[in-house]
Amino acid sequence: MDNLELIREIARPSPTKIVLLVIDGLGGLPNPETGKTELETASIPNLDNLATKGICGLADPVAPGITPGSAPGHLAVFGYDPVSCNIGRGVLEAIGIDVELQPGNVAARGNFCTVDEKGLVTDRRAGRISNEKCAELCELLDGMTIDDIQVLVYPVREHRFVAVFRGKDLDANVTESDPQQTGVAPLAITALSPEADRLAGVANQFIAQAKSRLAEHHPANMALLRGFSGQPSLPTMNEIYRLKPLAIAIYPMYRGLARLVGMEIAQTGTTLEDEFATLEQNYAGYDFFFLHVKWTDSAGEDGDFDRKVKVLEQIDAALPNLLRLDPDVLVVTGDHSTPAVLKGHSWHPVPVLLCSEYCRPDAVQDFSETAFLSGGLGRIQATQIMPLAMANAMKLNKFGA
Amino acid sequence: MDNLELIREIARPSPTKIVLLVIDGLGGLPNPETGKTELETASIPNLDNLATKGICGLADPVAPGITPGSAPGHLAVFGYDPVSCNIGRGVLEAIGIDVELQPGNVAARGNFCTVDEKGLVTDRRAGRISNEKCAELCELLDGMTIDDIQVLVYPVREHRFVAVFRGKDLDANVTESDPQQTGVAPLAITALSPEADRLAGVANQFIAQAKSRLAEHHPANMALLRGFSGQPSLPTMNEIYRLKPLAIAIYPMYRGLARLVGMEIAQTGTTLEDEFATLEQNYAGYDFFFLHVKWTDSAGEDGDFDRKVKVLEQIDAALPNLLRLDPDVLVVTGDHSTPAVLKGHSWHPVPVLLCSEYCRPDAVQDFSETAFLSGGLGRIQATQIMPLAMANAMKLNKFGA
Repeated sequence: MDNLELIREIARPSPTKIVLLVIDGLGGLPNPETGKTELETASIPNLDNLATKGICGLADPVAPGITPGSAPGHLAVFGYDPVSCNIGRGVLEAIGIDVELQPGNVAARGNFCTVDEKGLVTDRRAGRISNEKCAELCELLDGMTIDDIQVLVYPVREHRFVAVFRGKDLDANVTESDPQQTGVAPLAITALSPEADRLAGVANQFIAQAKSRLAEHHPANMALLRGFSGQPSLPTMNEIYRLKPLAIAIYPMYRGLARLVGMEIAQTGTTLEDEFATLEQNYAGYDFFFLHVKWTDSAGEDGDFDRKVKVLEQIDAALPNLLRLDPDVLVVTGDHSTPAVLKGHSWHPVPVLLCSEYCRPDAVQDFSETAFLSGGLGRIQATQIMPLAMANAMKLNKFGA
Repeated sequence: MDNLELIREIARPSPTKIVLLVIDGLGGLPNPETGKTELETASIPNLDNLATKGICGLADPVAPGITPGSAPGHLAVFGYDPVSCNIGRGVLEAIGIDVELQPGNVAARGNFCTVDEKGLVTDRRAGRISNEKCAELCELLDGMTIDDIQVLVYPVREHRFVAVFRGKDLDANVTESDPQQTGVAPLAITALSPEADRLAGVANQFIAQAKSRLAEHHPANMALLRGFSGQPSLPTMNEIYRLKPLAIAIYPMYRGLARLVGMEIAQTGTTLEDEFATLEQNYAGYDFFFLHVKWTDSAGEDGDFDRKVKVLEQIDAALPNLLRLDPDVLVVTGDHSTPAVLKGHSWHPVPVLLCSEYCRPDAVQDFSETAFLSGGLGRIQATQIMPLAMANAMKLNKFGA
C-alpha cells in the first residue's frame, strides 16, 4: 500500500482550513560575496516569526541530488509520488497555455519547421516565426476531424504549438516525428504498442494534411510533433484527502497542475496582493488553499540574486494579509530550489515551515536553509508535507487500533 | 528484499542482552501555559543521565503525519512493517482480553443488541448490559460447532464480546452483520472472495443460532458481528533476530501483540516495581526483554498533563532497578506519542534512546522531544530501532564481504 492509499483510508472531512503557500524556487545558495543565501540576506520578519512559532525542516521533492521540474515539484508537494505520476511533455505544454484537457485526451508539442523541395528539414524552428504568424498558422490547422478524432491546435509562441487529440481509444505510446536534426526528413510516427496504432495513424494523417495546408507558408511549410502524452488520470485531492481545494495562481502552468489533481481554480489578478485578496474572498468556501507565488523562481532563473531577495521581502511584507485569516494550518514551502548563482532549478532540499496549534514547535527562529537544518521536521520527502498538514488540521483518523 | 529479510540473513545469537523499555504514549506536546512538554516538565534525572551517555533521536512509527494505534506502534518497534502487518479489529479485540489465537483462527468483534418484533435493530448496544450479564450470555453462545468449525465466545465488557472461529479453511474476507445504525435489520454476512464462502456460511448460521438462544433475553436478544480478521502469521522474533524474547506487560493487549511475534509472556504483577522485579527474576533465561509501561498513555488519553508528568517521574525513580542489571543494550522509547493536550494518540515522532558500550554517544543531555532533535540517531523509522539494538548488541554479522 503506498502512502496515498493509506491517507485515503484515514482522511476525514473537518471544518479546519489548510493554506499551502508555495514560493516557487524558494531555496537558494550563498552569494559568493557575502556567504549568505537569498533567504539569509532578505529582511523577512514575518517569516522569521512564523519559523519561531512553527516547526521547520527541509524537503526533497524527488530524492537527494534530483533537480525537479515544476510538475514533479508541485505534484510532490500535493502528496503525489512525482516519479510514478510523471506528466508528459505534451500535456505540460498544453497545461502551460491554459488548455483544459479531458481524460483520454492526448497532447503533443508541435514545431513549425522548414523543409526543402526534397522534404528534408532545413530549420527545425522555421526561423522562429512571430507569435502572430504562429497563431495564424494554428488557425489553418485547427479543428480537423480524422477518423472520428478531433485535432485541436493552439499556438504557444514563436514556432511552438500544442496539438490535442480528442476522441476514443487513444493511447499516447507513439514515436515522434521530429528528427531532432536537419538534413533528414520528418519521421513517420509509429505505434510502440498495438493500442497506440490508432493514434499513430491519425497523427500521420494530421501531419500529411498539415504539410499540404502549410505548403505556401515558407519558412513554416511543415510541422513536427513530439512528446505525445496522455492526460494522466490521477486521483483527485478530494478523493484522497476529502478536501475541497482551491488553487490561486497567476501563471497557467500552476493552475494546470492544480487542475490535474482536481482543485478548483480561482480567478485572480496579476499581483501578490491580488492573490491574497482572492484567498480572503474565497476563504469561507473551501478548506484547502494552494497559493502559488512565481517571481522568486523567475528571479533565480535570471540569476538575479538581489531581485530574488527583494521578491522574498515583498512576500514577507504581504504576508499579514494571509495571517489575518488565521488558518488552522499554514505551510510555507517551495516546489524546488532555484539558487540565483545556478540560474536554474536545483536539487537542494527546500525549506518547509508548518504552523498549527499542535505542531510541536522547535527552537528555530530564522526562516532560512541553514536554520531549518535543526528544525523539528528534520529532512523529509516533499510528499510527506500533505500528510503532516492533514494531521495538524486533525483531518486524519488513527491508523490501526 | 525488505529490511527484515536482510536482518534475518545476518542475525546471529550471542550472550548479550537487550532491554526494550516501551513507555506507552511517551512523546508529548507543550503545555500552553508553560511552553514545556510533559518530558520537559518532569524531573527525570536517570533518563537525562541515560540521554547523556547514549545516542538519541526521534522515530516515526508509521510515517510523518500518521497517528498509529497501539498495534502498528508496537509492531514497528519490534521491527515489523506496521502497514503490511496491520492487525484486524477482531484479532485485536481477542488479544485485548488475553485470548490466545492459533494460526488459521478468525476473530470477530461482537455486540449484543436489541431487535424489535420485526427483527429491526433498536439499540446496537442492548442498553449496555452489565459485565455479569454479558458473561452469562456469552456462556449461552459459547462452544457451538457448525460445519466442523468451533465457535468460541468470550465476554469483553458491557455489550461487547469476541467470537473466535476455529477450524480448517477459514478466510476472514467477509462483510459485517452490524448495520451500524438502528431501524434496520442486521445484515447477512457475505463472502468478498470465494475462499471466504465457508466462513460466511458458518457465521450466518452462528448468528441464526444466537438469535434463537437469545430470544428470551431482551434487551440483549440478538448479536452483531464485525471486524472479522484472521490471526496473522508473522515470522517470529526468534526466526528473524535469533533472539529468545520475553515480554513483561501488565495489560493483555501488549502481551497479545508480543505473542503475535513469538515472544514468551512473563507472569507479572500490577505495578512498575512488579515489572522490574519480573525482569530481574527472568534476566538469566532470555536475551531480549520487552518491558511495557502503560500509565503514561492512560494519563495522556485522559488529558491529564500533570499525571503524565508524575508517571514519567515514577518510571525514572524506578529505573535504577533496571540499570542495576546493566544490559548490554538498553532502548527506551514509546509506541507513539500521546500528548495530554490532544487527549489521544498523535502523529508526532517518538523519542528514542539507545545506550550501549558502542553506541557513539551524541551531545544530548536531556531526555526530551526538543533535545532529541539534535541527537545522533536523527529522525528514523521505528522499524529501524531493532536493527540498531541488534547491532549494538553485536548480534548482526557484516553484510556482504
